[in-house]
Amino acid sequence: MKHLIVYAHPNPRSFNNAIKETIVNTLKNKGHEVEVRDLYALGFEPVLSGSDFETFQSGNMPSDIQAEQEHIKNADVITFIYPIWWTGLPAILKGYIDRVFAYGFAYSVDEQGGYVKHLTGKKGLIINTTGAPTEFYDQVGMTNSLKQTTDTGILDFVGIEPLHHQFFGAVPTVDDATRKEMLVEVEKLINEKF
Amino acid sequence: MKHLIVYAHPNPRSFNNAIKETIVNTLKNKGHEVEVRDLYALGFEPVLSGSDFETFQSGNMPSDIQAEQEHIKNADVITFIYPIWWTGLPAILKGYIDRVFAYGFAYSVDEQGGYVKHLTGKKGLIINTTGAPTEFYDQVGMTNSLKQTTDTGILDFVGIEPLHHQFFGAVPTVDDATRKEMLVEVEKLINEKF
Ligand SMILES: Cc1cc2nc3c(=O)[nH]c(=O)nc-3n(C[C@H](O)[C@H](O)[C@H](O)COP(=O)(O)O)c2cc1C
Ligand SMILES: Cc1cc2nc3c(=O)[nH]c(=O)nc-3n(C[C@H](O)[C@H](O)[C@H](O)COP(=O)(O)O)c2cc1C
Repeated sequence: MKHLIVYAHPNPRSFNNAIKETIVNTLKNKGHEVEVRDLYALGFEPVLSGSDFETFQSGNMPSDIQAEQEHIKNADVITFIYPIWWTGLPAILKGYIDRVFAYGFAYSVDEQGGYVKHLTGKKGLIINTTGAPTEFYDQVGMTNSLKQTTDTGILDFVGIEPLHHQFFGAVPTVDDATRKEMLVEVEKLINEKF
Repeated sequence: MKHLIVYAHPNPRSFNNAIKETIVNTLKNKGHEVEVRDLYALGFEPVLSGSDFETFQSGNMPSDIQAEQEHIKNADVITFIYPIWWTGLPAILKGYIDRVFAYGFAYSVDEQGGYVKHLTGKKGLIINTTGAPTEFYDQVGMTNSLKQTTDTGILDFVGIEPLHHQFFGAVPTVDDATRKEMLVEVEKLINEKF
């Protein structure tokens, strides 16, 4: 299978980076093709501009968006790895969605006014870390809100089937042994799903 | 009262701009002080970087962040006006939160490990437009998820009291008369609350 990993974290010493490395290695060991888009390393431009809108309408995408769309087209599975910041996506990743999942590429409206999902057939996986303990976010309904605003509001909206959404909680405060167990869980998840 | 308006939309002919103008005029007519931060016009940098983290830790904020923090400090009420994009904030506004609501400015952890909200006493108002009809988002729980990931996950987290969260649905498809009624509703809301 062809895997695209979309990764958003500024710090190479982060736990998110360890998750990314674990996933890449596990997939490669199983013989999968893996492409990583490290949005910070790319210096990805996240601001959807007025001129973007015009080019979407004319059917010409800016070249940086086109490049990301090619990676999506080539992928069977897209895995997003990012920390929860302010109960949402880091801005650089939010802007990747705003700009790359453009009208005409990811979805459109047909002549009868019907809504068309363009990325049907692809599968999506989301791995998040949080400062809050997972039990707390589960209990207050935040986990559900985070799922609905991503799995439903982003992936499913363009036809990407949400395979799984994994949260690792209390990451900044747990000990190293717990973080290691989390990486073992990541490996298990990848082995189970693919 | 001192009002800060944080506005995020690339298009001056947008309905969001009409909402912003209505709010500014209504507040000024009532004698309030109004400061508008138009994030697109400012070219606000939304990407929280590794060097931002370092400066937060050293207590020195980058000057663009400091400027926004001064506007927040001066405000009694902060009103956010933006369209819902991918069931979240436009990246430029998400990045404003990521960077401006920094540790040390908006919240901190005290010596006993207790969490401290720094913006207590301020009030917050959110005005959103959506493509989806409001009844649909209410019914599927998306309205609730959008509230939880902003009113709870952002405003309340730093002590800003969420006064109200107004959604205007189906904005791209309703007729002009309906849009005019929506602006009357905006005016009424502002007159009621302040
Ligand atoms: C700007 C910012 C915003 C954050 N907002 C949240 C939040 O809303 N909820 C939460 O549980 N943790 C929040 N955190 C904590 C991070 O999720 C946590 O530090 C991260 O997931 C740990 O993984 P890392 O070491 O790879 O960064 C925030 C951290 C930062 C820097
Ligand atoms: C990039 C993008 C993403 C959008 N995502 C959503 C969405 O998740 N839910 C929704 O109801 N409408 C969505 N819309 C529709 C906008 O919310 C709608 O066009 C806007 O609120 C209309 O107000 P405006 O004329 O001021 O832009 C999206 C529009 C764009 C451009």
